[in-house]
Amino acid sequence: MIKLVAFDLDDCLFDSTGLSKMARIKGIDVMIDLGLNIERKKAITILMEIVDEYGSNFSKHYNYFIRRLNQIDNEFNISFNMKYKFISAAVMAYHKEKIDSIRLYDDVKPTLMKLKKNKIKTSIITDGIPIKQWEKILRLNIDSLIELVVISDQIGVRKPNPWLFEFCLKKFAVKGEETLYIGDRIDKDIIPAKKNNIISVYIHRGGKYDSYKNESESSEYKIPDYEINNLDEIFTIIENLK
Amino acid sequence: MIKLVAFDLDDCLFDSTGLSKMARIKGIDVMIDLGLNIERKKAITILMEIVDEYGSNFSKHYNYFIRRLNQIDNEFNISFNMKYKFISAAVMAYHKEKIDSIRLYDDVKPTLMKLKKNKIKTSIITDGIPIKQWEKILRLNIDSLIELVVISDQIGVRKPNPWLFEFCLKKFAVKGEETLYIGDRIDKDIIPAKKNNIISVYIHRGGKYDSYKNESESSEYKIPDYEINNLDEIFTIIENLK
Repeated sequence: MIKLVAFDLDDCLFDSTGLSKMARIKGIDVMIDLGLNIERKKAITILMEIVDEYGSNFSKHYNYFIRRLNQIDNEFNISFNMKYKFISAAVMAYHKEKIDSIRLYDDVKPTLMKLKKNKIKTSIITDGIPIKQWEKILRLNIDSLIELVVISDQIGVRKPNPWLFEFCLKKFAVKGEETLYIGDRIDKDIIPAKKNNIISVYIHRGGKYDSYKNESESSEYKIPDYEINNLDEIFTIIENLK
Repeated sequence: MIKLVAFDLDDCLFDSTGLSKMARIKGIDVMIDLGLNIERKKAITILMEIVDEYGSNFSKHYNYFIRRLNQIDNEFNISFNMKYKFISAAVMAYHKEKIDSIRLYDDVKPTLMKLKKNKIKTSIITDGIPIKQWEKILRLNIDSLIELVVISDQIGVRKPNPWLFEFCLKKFAVKGEETLYIGDRIDKDIIPAKKNNIISVYIHRGGKYDSYKNESESSEYKIPDYEINNLDEIFTIIENLK
């Protein structure tokens, strides 16, 4: 009998990776509009290299982009006055795109509403900075459909630490066997869920599944209990577990 | 013969103090809308105390607001789940207000356009974080009317260090006597301008003038060369200096 359904947030409830990529490109476009003389495709390649090298949560992608052009490539000579005009405009365009274009995957709202109707509790368990993750939830307008949001940096425990999932179970006073967790990562979602006896559901959203198959974690935890392509499929799982 | 007119940014070209205050109150209002059970006036008083105590550039005013309610006042008991929902919503409302409501003082655009028409160079000399200050300039839509923006944290020199003003003179290759600087602070604007022989113009915008009159700096630097209430008055000054 499933009493709680918990979800990953980024790339499970909305296309976080796609949105970030689009937002980063908007930053490139506005710098070109303001007069940065660089081929768009080349600029995107350089920026994505910086994101790869410094991580997606680094706060100075555009600073490093301009720095890289100025320091490495002799054809660029971005002036004192233009440097932060470019960076500032890029950061503004990036944030505007993130605000304007965030939207749920189509299957999310119907699923959350059906869970509520069926009196099954709902939660989000997510890595990240509390105000940033809550901003996404508020902008996605699902806060009234989620009973508890567990954010790693609010309690100081980050995925894949199973403790983060145990914390959620305790808050609801439910057992792992009474809980479904849905995520798009084997390493950060499926493994820690299974370590808490939570019924794990892998959703094919980001395509990171195959690349993880070869890692060293015991296969007992690596194989999700279920795999789905659409959130609506969880209702069949819940029905079968009754 | 005046060749360059340089301006302070915050509280000289736009009402920065008023905008920040209004934005902070929007943050309070949204928390009350979301269910925070506090009298609006009391909430504003507490938040303004935090701003006073921790400074206006502190990044966690709302975090400390919630912390203070939870720790000090027994009538509040903001739950794990609501805490960052409130903070995040408040920060979002604060930023939205800052974006939506920033606007120039009425006398700024005509003045900048007249300076351009008269082939007098223009600059902004401002304290702050480069991308934040540039964001204001871009949102105020005056970037095409300002030839050089000198931001303290871009060069590592903060007001009232006169070096910041000397840097600007050198960039334009003009002398202090050929330059007008307009600001709303005796301590941070008038004194360092005068130390560079720049003709200093105090504009009555923020009302901080009188309170500074009693401080210890030599009176030679404390008395502005001119005092104005409207930017348009600088053209009379420029005319008289010919």
